[in-house]
Amino acid sequence: MSDTTARDTPTSSERRARRGARAARRRERMSAPLVMLPTLERKIPLYEVLNEEGVELVHEASMRILEEVGIDFRDDEALAIWREAGADVQGQRVRMDRALLLGLVAQAPEVYTLHGRNPERTVRVGGPYTVFAPTYGSPFVLDFEGERRYSTLEDLYNFLKLAHLSPALHLSGGIVCEPVDLPVSRRHLHVAYGCLRYSDKPFMGATTARERAEDTLAMARMVMGEEFVAKHTVMTSVTNCNSPLVWDATMLDALKVYARANQAVLVSPFVLAGANTPASSVGAVAQLNAEALAGVAFGQLVRPGSPMVYGQFTATVSMRSGAPMAGTPEICLMNYMIGQMARRYRLPWRSSGMNAGSKLVDAQAAYESNMTMHAVLLAGANFVFHAAGWLEAGLSASYAKFVLDAEQMEMYYRYAQGAVLDDFAEAMEAVREVGPGGHYLGTAHTQAHFQSAFFIPELLDNNNYEQWLLDGSKDANTRALEKARGMLGQYEEPGLDPAVDEALRAFIREREAQLPETLS
Amino acid sequence: MSDTTARDTPTSSERRARRGARAARRRERMSAPLVMLPTLERKIPLYEVLNEEGVELVHEASMRILEEVGIDFRDDEALAIWREAGADVQGQRVRMDRALLLGLVAQAPEVYTLHGRNPERTVRVGGPYTVFAPTYGSPFVLDFEGERRYSTLEDLYNFLKLAHLSPALHLSGGIVCEPVDLPVSRRHLHVAYGCLRYSDKPFMGATTARERAEDTLAMARMVMGEEFVAKHTVMTSVTNCNSPLVWDATMLDALKVYARANQAVLVSPFVLAGANTPASSVGAVAQLNAEALAGVAFGQLVRPGSPMVYGQFTATVSMRSGAPMAGTPEICLMNYMIGQMARRYRLPWRSSGMNAGSKLVDAQAAYESNMTMHAVLLAGANFVFHAAGWLEAGLSASYAKFVLDAEQMEMYYRYAQGAVLDDFAEAMEAVREVGPGGHYLGTAHTQAHFQSAFFIPELLDNNNYEQWLLDGSKDANTRALEKARGMLGQYEEPGLDPAVDEALRAFIREREAQLPETLS
Repeated sequence: MSDTTARDTPTSSERRARRGARAARRRERMSAPLVMLPTLERKIPLYEVLNEEGVELVHEASMRILEEVGIDFRDDEALAIWREAGADVQGQRVRMDRALLLGLVAQAPEVYTLHGRNPERTVRVGGPYTVFAPTYGSPFVLDFEGERRYSTLEDLYNFLKLAHLSPALHLSGGIVCEPVDLPVSRRHLHVAYGCLRYSDKPFMGATTARERAEDTLAMARMVMGEEFVAKHTVMTSVTNCNSPLVWDATMLDALKVYARANQAVLVSPFVLAGANTPASSVGAVAQLNAEALAGVAFGQLVRPGSPMVYGQFTATVSMRSGAPMAGTPEICLMNYMIGQMARRYRLPWRSSGMNAGSKLVDAQAAYESNMTMHAVLLAGANFVFHAAGWLEAGLSASYAKFVLDAEQMEMYYRYAQGAVLDDFAEAMEAVREVGPGGHYLGTAHTQAHFQSAFFIPELLDNNNYEQWLLDGSKDANTRALEKARGMLGQYEEPGLDPAVDEALRAFIREREAQLPETLS
Repeated sequence: MSDTTARDTPTSSERRARRGARAARRRERMSAPLVMLPTLERKIPLYEVLNEEGVELVHEASMRILEEVGIDFRDDEALAIWREAGADVQGQRVRMDRALLLGLVAQAPEVYTLHGRNPERTVRVGGPYTVFAPTYGSPFVLDFEGERRYSTLEDLYNFLKLAHLSPALHLSGGIVCEPVDLPVSRRHLHVAYGCLRYSDKPFMGATTARERAEDTLAMARMVMGEEFVAKHTVMTSVTNCNSPLVWDATMLDALKVYARANQAVLVSPFVLAGANTPASSVGAVAQLNAEALAGVAFGQLVRPGSPMVYGQFTATVSMRSGAPMAGTPEICLMNYMIGQMARRYRLPWRSSGMNAGSKLVDAQAAYESNMTMHAVLLAGANFVFHAAGWLEAGLSASYAKFVLDAEQMEMYYRYAQGAVLDDFAEAMEAVREVGPGGHYLGTAHTQAHFQSAFFIPELLDNNNYEQWLLDGSKDANTRALEKARGMLGQYEEPGLDPAVDEALRAFIREREAQLPETLS
């Protein structure tokens, strides 16, 4: 507790603090409704690591990649669209000059509004606005018994409920984990149903096949109305570029469906730096910049003005084992650079937050997660994907980590409010009032500000050792599982019109009758 | 592993990566000597949250605190010194005008050199230079069996050896943990002996009594020579201000001894924000700014030009339980502000890095540690105290966390090198060479840069799940304990002249005969 010896100065202060805090605790207990945090509007500066010259160097390199090397679009319709737009198309290789590319990119909105079916959950993405979204796509779950097993539809719905209840998560998610108990061809129907029923926050749609994107859209229209969905963006879905420099047909199909419907898409190169990019952080950024811009430009050809989020998933690859790594310094540095590039083109941009390679909710998982997320916040990412629950390089979603991460996001949210100077004069009055050797808990200023001054995490145990023993000597993982269980126990559905619910179910039945039980 | 589904794009890249990495691994195995990292010279920008006006607002408030409220110096000699210097002294209360204060503060060096007994371990503190030092002062240890027990001299020596072997730790430490098996009055002798014998890095001296500081100095002179120590700074010791606004006699005694000997001192308000400061982050900074500046100014009265590090320990206090909290957003924000204030006065400044309230080396400990440390790095702290091993609000030092944190410091060290553009043109050549759909592991650029491009942590397991199972399903804590055990097994003493060693032992015997076996 102290610097000098562990038993001097602080002990008395601490004792005073504990005494004075009892009254505060009593007062606070009386009011604790679940309050959702609106879109985060960042009030802290952006952190940048490239100077203007560096940004232009990367820009120039990306332009030359697209002009001279080109990028593959493995989809005939896409190639036709590019040819029509005036790009140089040879086989599947598309080369585009910067005038064409930048003209298209400039059509994408800098900020877009993402609507929840509850208007109070509507958020903004881009510029100073940031939203947090859960992890995505894990085939495994680290469950309540600490077992790693294939995830099920029940797990997926549990995660959607947890996301719904998490104040700092702005989206409920999409396929947070794979419902492995369902045939692949039918999963998207149940995912969309879960997103629409168990939360009223904005969500993410299927992108693994054209029809799946179309089904998701159809279901969203049934809930929010055809006209509303035609005029508003209610989803943000993820499409990955197959780095280096390949956009595959599947992803392009989904991108086309959503872009045509004016629904937002994360245009995300999937970077395993060193394996599918050069072994250079700046080099990797130049390549992904080309990939993301080409994707955004293509989306603008499909529908000018449709919302596109410049983005990436970024891991560095261990040159020792070939495995992707999370929480490395280069991932932080790349995030800063990526943010700078996205802002150069006035595009909202996406990053990944709480990524971890760990197989458990242990110290490794948290070291990795906060190493990356801290940089992602300061880099000014607008859409923070994988902000809760991600483990094992994304192969596993963890209940415990989901709620722990969700609380960290509340802390980052608070962090981004920056230094609050509003009550500074009163605080200085308190210094005069208290004077040397005094204590602050009884002052008027403290009484007025104790609830708002300092964030108090619930899942981080700061009690003394003896109290912690009395509470059962639980580690963070154990406490988090209890919290998640409690949340699911208290969860209440946000309410879906029974007629709409029945219509959704009928749609699912109808589509299931048409869809073969394929495994991919 | 993927965004879209967990089984698409990356799998093939990953497989390629694993194949290609085998050759790299073979090459790398051949050379792995222990290389210590020199002083960190930060090449990344500073992060700041106050604008110029905000800095001046805090400055003005601090000046008025010292001019109008005053600060207590509970030491007659100190009061006489202040009176002599022209301050307004009434009882123990000292009020000083800003001209006096700032004139004194300006005499402290902006950067100082801190010498190890091995010149290769000599570092710089201040300006763009940052050093990392271990945790300090814990009465408990979380040991190799996972037991929390009182720490012993053996534990302390173990930590000094681990610090000696950790590439990114620039100081061996001081009283990393309390040798509770020795009488309080005699501990400092064995601490200093351990620092001088088991490592050749710079270290930290005792500050809990005047004689203890003097004994430490005497022992340093025996090892490094009277003349050398007279001319060079070989220690940096920590003195705490008893916030709010009290400098106690014990701390002032130590500060006087070290300042007179031109040895550096961390002038550290011990901030429990909300309890011994106002419930306001900016308010807390204004108060600690006054406290630190008064301490530095006093040190300059004792010996003009002696190295003083503006600094603080900062926790926020839970208004729910009264307990100090670690890893909160406000601690990050305060660090940015404190850095800005210190730079305003051209002083080197100290912060605390890997602080945690957790009782275990679990996810909580790591979330907390990296939340704070990340900000401390970007804030530009020059002396990062508690950079390894701190647990349970400092009451416990953990072997596992020590080595985990030490590796994180290697990562922060790398982080601070910033974006490397040297090989950018070659990286872009690699993009041309590889082209769409290719892979990079065989390229000349990758071969040339694979070892330096991306940091590969040793204690963060990024193997796949099956390999991790084969390796024993170990969590980070378990792997870290194995690593720490291995390091202690391989540890070799840096070599101390046997005659000097014998002289140190004789000095300890002599002093022990004079010192009563007191318990405080």
